[in-house]
Amino acid sequence: MTVTPLFWLVPIASVVALAMAWFFFKSMMKADEGTPRMREIAEHVRKGAMAYLKQQYLVVLKVFLVLVVLFAFMAYVLKIQNPWVPFAFLTGGLFSGLAGFFGMKTATYASARTANAARKSLDGGLRIAFRSGAVMGLVVVGLGLLDIALWFIALSYVYGTDHVALITITTTMLTFGMGASTQALFARVGGGIYTKAADVGADIVGKVEADIPEDDPRNPATIADNVGDNVGDVAGMGADLYESYCGSILSTAALGATAFASAGEMQMRAVIAPMIIAAVGIFLSLIGIFLVRTKEGASMSQLLRSLAVGTNTSAVLIAIATFLILYGLGLDNWIGLSFSVISGLTAGVIIGQATEFYTSHSYKPTQAISESAQTGSATVIIKGIGTGMISTCIPVLTIGVAIMLSYLCANHFDLSMSAESISKGLYGIGIAAVGMLSTLGITLATDAYGPIADNAGGNAEMSELGEEVRHRTDALDALGNTTAATGKGFAIGSAALTALALLASYVEEIKIAMTRAMESGQQFIDAAGNAFDPSKASMPEMMEYFQVTLMNPRVLVGVFIGAMAAFLFCGLTMGAVGRAAAKMVDEVRRQFREIKGILEGKATPDYGSCVEISTRAAQHEMILPSLLAIIIPIVTGVVLGVAGVLGLLVGGLCAGFTLAVFMANAGGAWDNAKKFVEEGNFGGKGSDVHKATIVGDTVGDPFKDTSGPSLNILIKLMSMDSIVMAGLTVACNLM
Amino acid sequence: MTVTPLFWLVPIASVVALAMAWFFFKSMMKADEGTPRMREIAEHVRKGAMAYLKQQYLVVLKVFLVLVVLFAFMAYVLKIQNPWVPFAFLTGGLFSGLAGFFGMKTATYASARTANAARKSLDGGLRIAFRSGAVMGLVVVGLGLLDIALWFIALSYVYGTDHVALITITTTMLTFGMGASTQALFARVGGGIYTKAADVGADIVGKVEADIPEDDPRNPATIADNVGDNVGDVAGMGADLYESYCGSILSTAALGATAFASAGEMQMRAVIAPMIIAAVGIFLSLIGIFLVRTKEGASMSQLLRSLAVGTNTSAVLIAIATFLILYGLGLDNWIGLSFSVISGLTAGVIIGQATEFYTSHSYKPTQAISESAQTGSATVIIKGIGTGMISTCIPVLTIGVAIMLSYLCANHFDLSMSAESISKGLYGIGIAAVGMLSTLGITLATDAYGPIADNAGGNAEMSELGEEVRHRTDALDALGNTTAATGKGFAIGSAALTALALLASYVEEIKIAMTRAMESGQQFIDAAGNAFDPSKASMPEMMEYFQVTLMNPRVLVGVFIGAMAAFLFCGLTMGAVGRAAAKMVDEVRRQFREIKGILEGKATPDYGSCVEISTRAAQHEMILPSLLAIIIPIVTGVVLGVAGVLGLLVGGLCAGFTLAVFMANAGGAWDNAKKFVEEGNFGGKGSDVHKATIVGDTVGDPFKDTSGPSLNILIKLMSMDSIVMAGLTVACNLM
Repeated sequence: MTVTPLFWLVPIASVVALAMAWFFFKSMMKADEGTPRMREIAEHVRKGAMAYLKQQYLVVLKVFLVLVVLFAFMAYVLKIQNPWVPFAFLTGGLFSGLAGFFGMKTATYASARTANAARKSLDGGLRIAFRSGAVMGLVVVGLGLLDIALWFIALSYVYGTDHVALITITTTMLTFGMGASTQALFARVGGGIYTKAADVGADIVGKVEADIPEDDPRNPATIADNVGDNVGDVAGMGADLYESYCGSILSTAALGATAFASAGEMQMRAVIAPMIIAAVGIFLSLIGIFLVRTKEGASMSQLLRSLAVGTNTSAVLIAIATFLILYGLGLDNWIGLSFSVISGLTAGVIIGQATEFYTSHSYKPTQAISESAQTGSATVIIKGIGTGMISTCIPVLTIGVAIMLSYLCANHFDLSMSAESISKGLYGIGIAAVGMLSTLGITLATDAYGPIADNAGGNAEMSELGEEVRHRTDALDALGNTTAATGKGFAIGSAALTALALLASYVEEIKIAMTRAMESGQQFIDAAGNAFDPSKASMPEMMEYFQVTLMNPRVLVGVFIGAMAAFLFCGLTMGAVGRAAAKMVDEVRRQFREIKGILEGKATPDYGSCVEISTRAAQHEMILPSLLAIIIPIVTGVVLGVAGVLGLLVGGLCAGFTLAVFMANAGGAWDNAKKFVEEGNFGGKGSDVHKATIVGDTVGDPFKDTSGPSLNILIKLMSMDSIVMAGLTVACNLM
Repeated sequence: MTVTPLFWLVPIASVVALAMAWFFFKSMMKADEGTPRMREIAEHVRKGAMAYLKQQYLVVLKVFLVLVVLFAFMAYVLKIQNPWVPFAFLTGGLFSGLAGFFGMKTATYASARTANAARKSLDGGLRIAFRSGAVMGLVVVGLGLLDIALWFIALSYVYGTDHVALITITTTMLTFGMGASTQALFARVGGGIYTKAADVGADIVGKVEADIPEDDPRNPATIADNVGDNVGDVAGMGADLYESYCGSILSTAALGATAFASAGEMQMRAVIAPMIIAAVGIFLSLIGIFLVRTKEGASMSQLLRSLAVGTNTSAVLIAIATFLILYGLGLDNWIGLSFSVISGLTAGVIIGQATEFYTSHSYKPTQAISESAQTGSATVIIKGIGTGMISTCIPVLTIGVAIMLSYLCANHFDLSMSAESISKGLYGIGIAAVGMLSTLGITLATDAYGPIADNAGGNAEMSELGEEVRHRTDALDALGNTTAATGKGFAIGSAALTALALLASYVEEIKIAMTRAMESGQQFIDAAGNAFDPSKASMPEMMEYFQVTLMNPRVLVGVFIGAMAAFLFCGLTMGAVGRAAAKMVDEVRRQFREIKGILEGKATPDYGSCVEISTRAAQHEMILPSLLAIIIPIVTGVVLGVAGVLGLLVGGLCAGFTLAVFMANAGGAWDNAKKFVEEGNFGGKGSDVHKATIVGDTVGDPFKDTSGPSLNILIKLMSMDSIVMAGLTVACNLM
């Protein structure tokens, strides 16, 4: 088979994305950074963020070295592992780290410039913040496709492009997702702990006890808080979505290689289809990005519309383009597969809308939380948790419908569960996830824009730029909160679909590991006592061999452990934020007490010690939950075998998805319930009702920015981990 | 086959249990109810509780009538339903309601008598409270076995006792579990909303705003609070555990009938084995109850020991007795099955110990929550949620090990997933649940004892009996909190195991429904296009026919919906408590404002209006979550078929169990973190730290007493519901 010429779109798109990112970065750097005070604060934040990132990468490097040695040992000594894994793992981690690094570097240069532009006009601020967010979006998709293109070219040079080779290549490439997931988990967990320790600590002493506004320069934790926005919300999110993006493309390619293994040229087309959709998505995202323009003196709703025009245009264009791409590729059932993509895209939009409904204070649920604050902070918490739990309903039903539709559209509405119907259906689920993430260039831009605007506000407050500028940055920030809802819908929806696609890839990897074991002399006997040849087994035969039925106690115990893993992981990250925040509160209280004149603005607080506390807490606390996420699937595989692991992944996925939606939405709703009161409802700023909503907001911080988003990665890391460790599961299953 | 003579132990034990309950009730009634003021308060609470129960039963009656008509229509008109179902459903509901009613009646008579006895001595109070709790325990097990025995006798008279008849009889009896579950759900949800609306409302205005102690007669919500303890914690718990008890026995009997269908006499033995274990458990519980005696002037640790002696003796005796019973019955593999029972019992104990570790303020986790209160209520909430989530780890792993062990011990360590190995293994899981609940007579006594002691304290405070008496009732209350931990372990552990056993019963019911459909002319074709005869299909063949593999999108979507259902249900009940509590707060604030002299103790508050608010809120708010729990499995069955329902049940079980443990433990830990501060730590009563822990306690109230325990029932009701609706799923599956 030859590589379809269309494939070359993939490296081209990645280079274009990186070049455009460079262009946006350079043009942002040309803007003025403002007054000396503004520069100074930006410099503080930048230094703190970079110092933290360096330390985090050092910790992650150690973990990576240990894992690489382990993978190399499994590959070269035990010979139960694909020999490319150590390298693929490393490049995945490296590129994911780079995406976070460049995004954060851009953000830290952009915040003062955004604030400065906002001194003149609202839309000047918007343009700088949004274009800087676009740098992040383009770097993520550019590096992702670059990594994919390079590996695909290299491996097809080594293995050729026949039917067997394509399966080998795609399953090998899948393992670089493990590197990206591991990096992403540390970035999300570490960054999440960092930012929320600072934020919670700053809020408790500043807003509740000392009654000073957010980002007030008298608050010693305020620089740490702004650093946190960058390391958590920017660098963490970059690594996270890099991983989703590559994971969905790679797992779909692997599914395509299997589903069309005996379909001649069709196999190559199925493998590169997700890559090409992603490549075209880059160009369409660029169109969207350029569409985001505003007139001088635009109103808030005009601003919102101009952002929405960008993202919606890209989404509609990709929906249309998918038909053309799949038709152009000459893929079988291209119409059905295009509808799979559309069901994924639509699901993302619906989840985003539901998120907005449950978390925006323009709607009743969040207003009701504000109302419940009239009876104190306890009822705010009860109401918020209740609302968050109820809000899981629409996203779960939407994902359920999307799963059924993308599966059925891809396999001609065949529910027979034959080998072919399953593999084609799962390919449909995978390509729906790719469709959802194909316009990541622009959706991530609107997401990364948020923390930049937030930091610009911080800079404006600390530089005492005056009420009007702060109003403008607040407007930019509020805009970010709204657009972020859609972004979240795509992020979590695609995580669920990708994780489902990875389930199938896991079974494929087990098959490969068994084939390898058989070649070294191991024999497999099925339940009936006959010899079992994994290399010839179809998906249903594999499932039967491993007795993956719901009546198998190993499957049931696996599902239990998967659900528990999601809770345990959240519990550990919540606890970490609690502990770190307590240290932060102690330190801020100490400074208020010991540094004379600090509250009158006559003495400078010691910002550095607060940065230090967050840094140390994040580094220390991110280890345990992250390692658990890696170890649980391995131990489950060794003790309960393939059936147990599949149970674990399904349980982790379903409970984790629901828990993630609950936490993200409860957190978002509390945040906006507070804003609703601040806008003058139920007593307004400074009232008892306001204080009660601040408690809700503070509890919601780790919900929405630490534990909730980390679950997205946990879901996929557990799958990736199981895939990479397939050889070990085959070699040392105890039962 | 003849009914083994040992069977007659079952009706005998049930009559003995009811007679002893009557005896304990009469002897409690002989005790003095105390001062006129004490009688008056007790009368208030009793009337409020009975009035509420009457109204609740009216609502439930309406729901039952609708369902009975539906079942009758399905049975007699559509002929897709077992004709006994309407009657079995009604008796299950009736007996469950009776258990709650008698338990609550006893409790409301016992509280003033306990307080009065505590005026003289601690152990006098203990004896009355504990023996009254025992009334509840014995009524539940007595009515449960009576219902089972009567139906078994009646149906074996109608159908005979051959191999087919036993399967028909046991699967028919299973459906009376649906009645018990439905009644229990309403009792738990309604009672839970009632009690927590009053409790949260009373705490917010009383403790936090007006700074008056708990149960202070000046607080208008205090009678409602005490009524709530009775309707929620006593009547609700009674109905709940009645359902668990019968559910585990019935599902195990049904599994036994299938697993030993071709094993001659062995089938009858397997069917009655769980009933006999339960019957013997009643006698052993009575021994335990009589062992709970204390010397005059016993210390707290002696009291604890005397309760522990009772429960532990019963548990050890039943473990030994199981060997004798199963040997005496001549059941195959009696040693293995006995070990299944022991693994269930051990799991219950371990979960109880873990619960105690995470929720008692003698241990670090809860103390750390108190410590976190130094930085305010937000960190208390964050820490408590983190701790609750982490605390799911041990219970889930324990249940996982218990599932594997009870399965493997029962089928000679056979993991081959043959039809026989599965059905015997599942029988082992069922009988482990029966073992866990066999000593319910005494474990429920220690559980029901708690709210009686709590109410006695309320009575003492309102009757102003003085510091010393209140100290004694506080000690009794604290004792109840500790022993309740073990009770909770058994309740939730047995719910999980019973739900698993019900999974298998569901497949069995589908088989019966399909056989019935085939007899009326319907034909079934399998995936390969061959005719499928359900009446001859084994469990694995059924699973294959319905394609219940983890790669089936219907299964996956089912698991998603199951996980979501647990969250949605909790969200609705949390929201209900929040809304009702807000109304209560408004009312109490109004009375404090409008009734002059109320806070000085010169004017009597209007207790009745608060009772009215709780009653109306509970009645109104319990409908939606309860109906959803009934409707979701039906809709899933119609849309996604058998595969979807099995996914739903597994997802609901695993996510629901984890969520239930999280909520119960977080709530318990908050409660005790407050008590730890009240004992003088971190500033003690009245400090800011104390106020922060009260917020935690208030949030924890609906966690541990409304949403958490209701999940136990939800898990089983969804299974029961699917079982009863099997005919509908077979008749109108859309896919």
